[in-house]
Amino acid sequence: MADRRPGQFELIARYFAPLAKSFPGAGGLKSDNAFLSADARHDLVVKTDTIVAGVHFLPDERPDRIAAKALRVCLSDLAAGGATPYAYQLSLALPARWTERWLGAFARGLGADQRRYGIVLCGGDTVATPGPLTVTVTAFGRVPRRKGLSRAGAKAGDELWVSGTIGDAALGLLVARGRLANAALEKRYRVPQPRTKLGPRLIGIVHATADVSDGLLADAGHIAEASRLALVVEREQVPLSRAARRVVEGDPSLWTTVLGGGDDYELAMAVPPRRRQALLTAARAAKIKVSPIGIFTTGRGVQLTVAGRGVRTERMGYVHF
Amino acid sequence: MADRRPGQFELIARYFAPLAKSFPGAGGLKSDNAFLSADARHDLVVKTDTIVAGVHFLPDERPDRIAAKALRVCLSDLAAGGATPYAYQLSLALPARWTERWLGAFARGLGADQRRYGIVLCGGDTVATPGPLTVTVTAFGRVPRRKGLSRAGAKAGDELWVSGTIGDAALGLLVARGRLANAALEKRYRVPQPRTKLGPRLIGIVHATADVSDGLLADAGHIAEASRLALVVEREQVPLSRAARRVVEGDPSLWTTVLGGGDDYELAMAVPPRRRQALLTAARAAKIKVSPIGIFTTGRGVQLTVAGRGVRTERMGYVHF
Repeated sequence: MADRRPGQFELIARYFAPLAKSFPGAGGLKSDNAFLSADARHDLVVKTDTIVAGVHFLPDERPDRIAAKALRVCLSDLAAGGATPYAYQLSLALPARWTERWLGAFARGLGADQRRYGIVLCGGDTVATPGPLTVTVTAFGRVPRRKGLSRAGAKAGDELWVSGTIGDAALGLLVARGRLANAALEKRYRVPQPRTKLGPRLIGIVHATADVSDGLLADAGHIAEASRLALVVEREQVPLSRAARRVVEGDPSLWTTVLGGGDDYELAMAVPPRRRQALLTAARAAKIKVSPIGIFTTGRGVQLTVAGRGVRTERMGYVHF
Repeated sequence: MADRRPGQFELIARYFAPLAKSFPGAGGLKSDNAFLSADARHDLVVKTDTIVAGVHFLPDERPDRIAAKALRVCLSDLAAGGATPYAYQLSLALPARWTERWLGAFARGLGADQRRYGIVLCGGDTVATPGPLTVTVTAFGRVPRRKGLSRAGAKAGDELWVSGTIGDAALGLLVARGRLANAALEKRYRVPQPRTKLGPRLIGIVHATADVSDGLLADAGHIAEASRLALVVEREQVPLSRAARRVVEGDPSLWTTVLGGGDDYELAMAVPPRRRQALLTAARAAKIKVSPIGIFTTGRGVQLTVAGRGVRTERMGYVHF
């Protein structure tokens, strides 16, 4: 490429400082440190995620979509914590072949998501790597003091609810790999939609939450495990998009992909039955559909049922190694 | 290797959860999020650094030293901010050939530094990479509300002081590469010593600080630039270790390495002359030597002098790209 290549300081000034302009404690990214002001009314919720080219996104992915994915996987966890997005640190390990055009598009992707989610860059690091592009985001959210949500806290008798639809992203990955054809599903894989509007509204309503990133059965199972409970999930109640339903009806073996595939970035919630109405009201305010799909009971383990009959599941979720 | 390889959750439980035991908001690393409690008396200081095998440390480096370096480069920035270390997030991108033995030694290295610096793991991410080992630390420190130090704020007439000795690490890198022989210098390169005891004591004494990570002239120059001042540095006052002095006397061309080489992790400070005594008292309490080596004046740019005579400098600091 014919790009002139700026040095680290110039690169930060040109592409990243504009993204940190509205965060006073970032000092225009001219200081090494960011200062986060004391706030006695909120706890800070922190999440770090690393995505690697060829592992967590396709090597030829558009730079604005890589930026969006890096941010949104963290925002999804913050939503599960009940937190409102606040600021983030970005570490970028750039392969030698980076270009200004690429970096400009990446920074514009960050900027668009900053406006969408009300979040702002407050610092980070930019380094060279002989390996693949590696993006680490540490995102900060705020939650009213001592009100943060986590996986632990579900009670026997709570219902398992999920937001949105399940399985689109995992089926979308098959589309991206050329094994299915469906543009809507592919977009769900490439562009996660974290439920940041719903998360903060769940405080005082749900007992426990997780975001569905590793796969529905795995992540809902983590709520059960952290809460020392068993969980029964009814497959016929799992909400599917029209596109996903059509695909799965054509090939029922794809249920494994839907329930274990991950990348949904929906919220799984443990909800006491008496708060059902409050949850529906919160979901309506956030403009997100929610569906009851199971129940937490005493005991351990996850049981999938189909029309009430127990079935065995081969694959619970994404295997990281 | 004959290691049995645990999955991500088992790996976190075995190696990293013990490091987060004393941080209540980490939930034993079973939750995705960390919760940092509200604290009305302190601002939070945040720094992210990424180190990549073969770029920021030697590919054959011992795992405990990689762990120490990843943490300490951040702690050095926190010290420059006047902050006391508090907690950190760790993201580890592991090449396929990782072993349990390697990971155990890496975690022990983190544990030793947690005890040394009073810091604790509060969350993070572990992913697979087809590239080199990449370690990102986001470190949190605490500083009394609105008292954080930064590069900006030096005044004309302030003296430039530095802690410890300069150039050992850059000469040590030449040792590590086989171009010099000196074990003490090599250790200064491989094992940074961040000035965490001095940093918090500088509040109320100094006008501005930076840690010396990219090279003395570059980092002190950043203070001048951020403070809109010029800076004169007198080479004969720059404190050298006995080993460094011997090496540089043998080959004066190595002055360029000493003044521009980086990785010192000392603190550069802009100190009003009336606070000299306060600085010396603080340094004595922190058991670190400090030396005056220059002066900030009106104007712009960095001028190096040798016995009062201006000289040209070819290389100001580490070039990241």
